[in-house]
Amino acid sequence: MFRTAELGRTVSKEDFEAVADTLRIEMVELQQHLRTCDFPVIILFAGVDGAGKSETMNLLNEWMDPRWIVTRAYAEPSEEERERPLFWRYWRDLPARGKIGLFLSAWYSQPLLDRAWNRIGEAQFDERLSRVATFEKELADDGALILKFWMHLGRKEQKKRLKTLEKDPHESWRVTERDWKHWEMYDDFITASERLIVQTSMAHAPWQIVEGLDPRYRSLTVLTAIRDAARRHMDSQKMRKRLVTTLDSRQKKQAPAAAEVATPAAAAASADPVGTAILSRMPSILSSLDMARSYDKKDYAEQAQIQRARLNGLQRRARAEGVSSILVFEGWDAAGKGGAIRRMTAGLDARDYQVIPVAAPTDEERAHHYLWRFWRHLSRAGRVTIYDRSWYGRVLVERVEGFATQEEWKRAYSEIRDFEEQLIEHGSVLVKYWFHITKEEQHERFKQRESIAYKRWKLTGEDWRNREKWDAYETAVNEMIERTSTHTAPWTLVEANDKRHARVKAMETFCDALEKRLG
Amino acid sequence: MFRTAELGRTVSKEDFEAVADTLRIEMVELQQHLRTCDFPVIILFAGVDGAGKSETMNLLNEWMDPRWIVTRAYAEPSEEERERPLFWRYWRDLPARGKIGLFLSAWYSQPLLDRAWNRIGEAQFDERLSRVATFEKELADDGALILKFWMHLGRKEQKKRLKTLEKDPHESWRVTERDWKHWEMYDDFITASERLIVQTSMAHAPWQIVEGLDPRYRSLTVLTAIRDAARRHMDSQKMRKRLVTTLDSRQKKQAPAAAEVATPAAAAASADPVGTAILSRMPSILSSLDMARSYDKKDYAEQAQIQRARLNGLQRRARAEGVSSILVFEGWDAAGKGGAIRRMTAGLDARDYQVIPVAAPTDEERAHHYLWRFWRHLSRAGRVTIYDRSWYGRVLVERVEGFATQEEWKRAYSEIRDFEEQLIEHGSVLVKYWFHITKEEQHERFKQRESIAYKRWKLTGEDWRNREKWDAYETAVNEMIERTSTHTAPWTLVEANDKRHARVKAMETFCDALEKRLG
Repeated sequence: MFRTAELGRTVSKEDFEAVADTLRIEMVELQQHLRTCDFPVIILFAGVDGAGKSETMNLLNEWMDPRWIVTRAYAEPSEEERERPLFWRYWRDLPARGKIGLFLSAWYSQPLLDRAWNRIGEAQFDERLSRVATFEKELADDGALILKFWMHLGRKEQKKRLKTLEKDPHESWRVTERDWKHWEMYDDFITASERLIVQTSMAHAPWQIVEGLDPRYRSLTVLTAIRDAARRHMDSQKMRKRLVTTLDSRQKKQAPAAAEVATPAAAAASADPVGTAILSRMPSILSSLDMARSYDKKDYAEQAQIQRARLNGLQRRARAEGVSSILVFEGWDAAGKGGAIRRMTAGLDARDYQVIPVAAPTDEERAHHYLWRFWRHLSRAGRVTIYDRSWYGRVLVERVEGFATQEEWKRAYSEIRDFEEQLIEHGSVLVKYWFHITKEEQHERFKQRESIAYKRWKLTGEDWRNREKWDAYETAVNEMIERTSTHTAPWTLVEANDKRHARVKAMETFCDALEKRLG
Repeated sequence: MFRTAELGRTVSKEDFEAVADTLRIEMVELQQHLRTCDFPVIILFAGVDGAGKSETMNLLNEWMDPRWIVTRAYAEPSEEERERPLFWRYWRDLPARGKIGLFLSAWYSQPLLDRAWNRIGEAQFDERLSRVATFEKELADDGALILKFWMHLGRKEQKKRLKTLEKDPHESWRVTERDWKHWEMYDDFITASERLIVQTSMAHAPWQIVEGLDPRYRSLTVLTAIRDAARRHMDSQKMRKRLVTTLDSRQKKQAPAAAEVATPAAAAASADPVGTAILSRMPSILSSLDMARSYDKKDYAEQAQIQRARLNGLQRRARAEGVSSILVFEGWDAAGKGGAIRRMTAGLDARDYQVIPVAAPTDEERAHHYLWRFWRHLSRAGRVTIYDRSWYGRVLVERVEGFATQEEWKRAYSEIRDFEEQLIEHGSVLVKYWFHITKEEQHERFKQRESIAYKRWKLTGEDWRNREKWDAYETAVNEMIERTSTHTAPWTLVEANDKRHARVKAMETFCDALEKRLG
């Protein structure tokens, strides 16, 4: 989940300054516009110390009019506060409609600390988070726009950052012994943070993970995200109000109000809002892969044999112990998923596995929830189920092609996490592969398929059309990995320009996962 | 919560037969209409054994076309089922769009049994229920209409019912030793059931508690509820679809589709649907109160003195131990809330209490979530906060007068429960009074107020206008009590036709609650 925020993204001074003035004006105008809206904006910053939480809050206060902003950070509860229920102080500080509230960690701070220090167990942590989720749900139901930014730094980067601050005589006060203690506990914090984000990232109050290394990058990311979300929210609030009015007037048996068409704030803004272009040039988790990885023929033969033997032994144990495995193969067209699956199954007993090719749903499947068809294929104890494409279609092809509405595919991230959690709780091994090839390599392979008679059937007009949407797919894949790669159900990114490397890596990863599960 | 389903409601044979044919035709037509809709209907029955769960499911199958109904009851998981995650069998059985699924207990059965038998603790129970809630949320998000009926019987009625079944040679097989064991555990089941209902009653999947004593009453209740909910759902799905289409076409920067006006299925049906009239004549929790309760002057003087002294002593202890109390006074206009509050505070130290009269919100309050103004008034440790009217205004006056939309006041039940849960978790004593007078008594009092000069200010045109909406208010009050009277935060219904009785009962109830809390 956090790997996608450790890519060293930076924005140059020139790039930043080229958009800063426009963006600043936009933010001020936005704020003025918000003052006339009847919902509050709640923006929360949390994350790794040193990743720029307070700096970003300061910037927002500097760039906008602080008279319409409530800024709150919390220390240990005062006596006054301890005498009331925990959330009293947060309720008290909520911004009124038309205003913006900036919150530093706030209601997330104590649960996270308590969990990282192991003062509470996982079940208690979940209970505390569920209270938080209910709180935010109630505010969102009341119309509030809620945005949450998780500012992230890798372990090494955090150390560097703390050192730098310590050396600066004006800043050294910021670094306390407690900060260093927390740095030592980095892994505990990360584990707890991931769970926190998974449990409290809702469509109405989503977390956005922001790489906190470079001040210009993180500022641009946060500011444009606030701007775009606020514009969308203004639109949807207008629409919702009209719907409620119409429904209500029907309940009261009056004639429905004539539906007027509001000027959508988002559409009114330029099609390519300021800052977007710069951010789209930033490296992604996919672009950070080392695509040169390869095996020569001899090494491959050797490695493939080793892994196949390993797999065979491990799966026999898994079968005996009743441990099921679920393998998910996703990837670009022509990335070699099918070939890798065949190499994998060559190491397995035919009675032990089942390959489920996932194409367009059948009529019966279409008449159910989109997860239904994956539930029904879950195999019995001790078997391997291989999905050639999977439930991730919801956030890939269905998103890009518009088969699912935005509301639907955004909701799907948590639905998928919930589904996978049930698989894992049941004791199954879950391995998810993304087979990655470069755009050039794909072109090469398409051309090759066209020229080889027995491969020609594999290539359709569909493939060429999908290729045209490469960028949209890439965005979707990056977001999918960010949102659904968790500690318990991580994505394995397979560098697949070299088929040999890809096949060995796929087998090896599965073997490692089986070995870990079987102990 | 269950008291409202122990009122001995019955529907006579004549009444039932007068509507049965029409209702039956409506149900068949509804089913045919549903077949063309693109959402499934999921109807779940749970509750006390012998309260008519299976009988009602059978009736639905008899009255509608079973070809379009999936009916499912579950035994212990089979080997096949144990080899997959718990919810596999439920996913597998979900009805397709256009069909109806009838489920007996299903996903609620095991958590409830495990909790009642104390095989799991409360935290684990909550976790299991939260998985259930997520499951239903995903289905509802996908468009499903979910209705859940909790069939209830009081302890004595259940015994009687089991005895009757045992005596009947054709039915005796239905009663097992396990049923009798469960009957002995009645209270454990009720406690667990209440928590189950509170945790899983959502706007998109509400529980309706049905008194299960009389087959005709419960059939009529369930059938009309299904009919009305299905009609509303068809309407709202149509509206939602239009909204999504419009929003989506905007995102895609196309011109929004011209909003056509659909024929609302609910409005098309008659204004007073079949069966509604009979059900509205049924006794309610309010109508079951013994309004003759009273004290003569001497008894009152004595009792009032005893309770006042008791209150004084208890509150001094509460103050010393830092235990706060929150008293909520709700009731009809002129029911004597103010007088009871003054008698109560006469027993308290002026530094210890605060009376919050709740009228229309201020501008500042209106600019926040409706619960905000109640949060801000929470007093410090050891004090008594008395709300003269309260957050319940949301589901009373705001509901009846249309100040809150249906979506808003329906959501409020769980928001309120959540708020009160936080007060109780914090260690506060919470007492909620509903001051009940008959409509005749109110008329009497209004007339009296008009004629006494120093009381005339109390009576406004508003009061007479509210009185005209007595029935709408009564419906709202009954529902409020059903949904928010829980084991930890029960409503105290005060028979207030006699002011003396009401004042003593109010004080006594508070004293009992304080005593219980202070141990």
